[in-house]
Amino acid sequence: MDKAGLWKQIRQKSSMLCVGLDSDESKMPEYFQLTTHPQIVFNKAIIEATKDLAVAYKLNTAFYETRGAKGWHAMEETLLDIPDNCLKIADAKRGDIGNTSTMYAKAFFEQLEFDAMTIAPYMGIDSVKPFLEFQGKWVIILAVTSNEGSKNFQFQELKSGLKLFEEVLNTTSKWGTDSQIMYVVGATHPEFLGTIRSIVPEHFLLVPGVGAQGGDLKAVLKNGITGSGGLLINSSRGILFAGKGEDAIPAARREAQRLQQLMAPFIR
Amino acid sequence: MDKAGLWKQIRQKSSMLCVGLDSDESKMPEYFQLTTHPQIVFNKAIIEATKDLAVAYKLNTAFYETRGAKGWHAMEETLLDIPDNCLKIADAKRGDIGNTSTMYAKAFFEQLEFDAMTIAPYMGIDSVKPFLEFQGKWVIILAVTSNEGSKNFQFQELKSGLKLFEEVLNTTSKWGTDSQIMYVVGATHPEFLGTIRSIVPEHFLLVPGVGAQGGDLKAVLKNGITGSGGLLINSSRGILFAGKGEDAIPAARREAQRLQQLMAPFIR
Repeated sequence: MDKAGLWKQIRQKSSMLCVGLDSDESKMPEYFQLTTHPQIVFNKAIIEATKDLAVAYKLNTAFYETRGAKGWHAMEETLLDIPDNCLKIADAKRGDIGNTSTMYAKAFFEQLEFDAMTIAPYMGIDSVKPFLEFQGKWVIILAVTSNEGSKNFQFQELKSGLKLFEEVLNTTSKWGTDSQIMYVVGATHPEFLGTIRSIVPEHFLLVPGVGAQGGDLKAVLKNGITGSGGLLINSSRGILFAGKGEDAIPAARREAQRLQQLMAPFIR
Repeated sequence: MDKAGLWKQIRQKSSMLCVGLDSDESKMPEYFQLTTHPQIVFNKAIIEATKDLAVAYKLNTAFYETRGAKGWHAMEETLLDIPDNCLKIADAKRGDIGNTSTMYAKAFFEQLEFDAMTIAPYMGIDSVKPFLEFQGKWVIILAVTSNEGSKNFQFQELKSGLKLFEEVLNTTSKWGTDSQIMYVVGATHPEFLGTIRSIVPEHFLLVPGVGAQGGDLKAVLKNGITGSGGLLINSSRGILFAGKGEDAIPAARREAQRLQQLMAPFIR
């Protein structure tokens, strides 16, 4: 899905919601755990309950990869269950070079048909470029993450006066277009959105951390949307595990709806 | 294997060689490609031919993960073929947080029984700590990588006067001991070894880039060993694909032997 297509979906659904399928079997209601393929069945139920409210689904690949063959199969099946009018994001946070990056790109973009993939920037240009060579696919570069440790290096001040994440935005935004690159910007740091938007006004930002991690959604919505620079607001555990037992799926829908309704007034 | 155990192996074998099993099927001789499990069979042959010369084997996990279930199985089988007196390294370059890191750690340290795993530092402390909680396992943090793009961010000068990779060494070396943490330092940047050794004199360095990437092995050996701070010198393609056809495996051994003989005089 290209940038125009993504905006079309956002306006049609009055939503910038990305549902994070961090589908931890041990946290699912028992009646999902007892099925042959809990991740597939649970994801299918979550997708059915939220697909009119979400414009993107993000699979944290660790939850699948670490289950070996079964997990890989669950990713394949889940991707088939996500409607084509939703962006399919592999949250894999890869960062490797040349040939290795190309292999990861082929695995996630071609074998699994994801539309987008998260990438760590530490290794520089040859860790990002191979992913940009895939037509119609998105690379989502980690800029400011939502975790505590983001302070260790991302906020380091450089000699130039910029912080490291600003340098990452400056440098990497020259490697492709705003129809190829998005950035991860954690909702736990809304104070940096002004600066971020002055560097990348037209890029989409993928914003994790509004749910369990306590980010400020309203501050993000207020300062995060500029020109054609939209947002994808991710909630994972906040939606997936909103309710218990029989109420799990209805509660997931209610939480998705609550977030969508908070977003709607900000979408022009 | 702990630090003392690793030094014991290095002295016994007069070698700091790490063989990188970047086992790309398309580059193997045809008689391997025609077997049911080319990666397993090829790795077994390489391990047999080099195990008296190598103290570590490094699996670039991308070459296996991207093959799905079959690749996961190939990693399992290859790990069984590596002798226990060699360190088993997962070159996975992961960087994620909390729960996700713990899942990766369990997958690579417990399901697959690797001894060590490479980690990207961009996300900070909570992306590294979960791996350090596994007793007797090693975390190998990317400091200076051997690729062209390493200049983009790793060499950025900070306000403090340090380069980013120096800050990474300074900060992360406080998160664990030199029996838990190693660093990736590319052989293509031997000019930084002095600085690196002034910050982390007692840590092991994993040094890629001596083969195909053209790093200077002698400069690395001369400046890279200090006190108990040893080296693991990695060669992947340079060994695996040293020869063609019937000569592939004998040529791999000759190349491993050539590297070992270059290293031997530097080992005390």
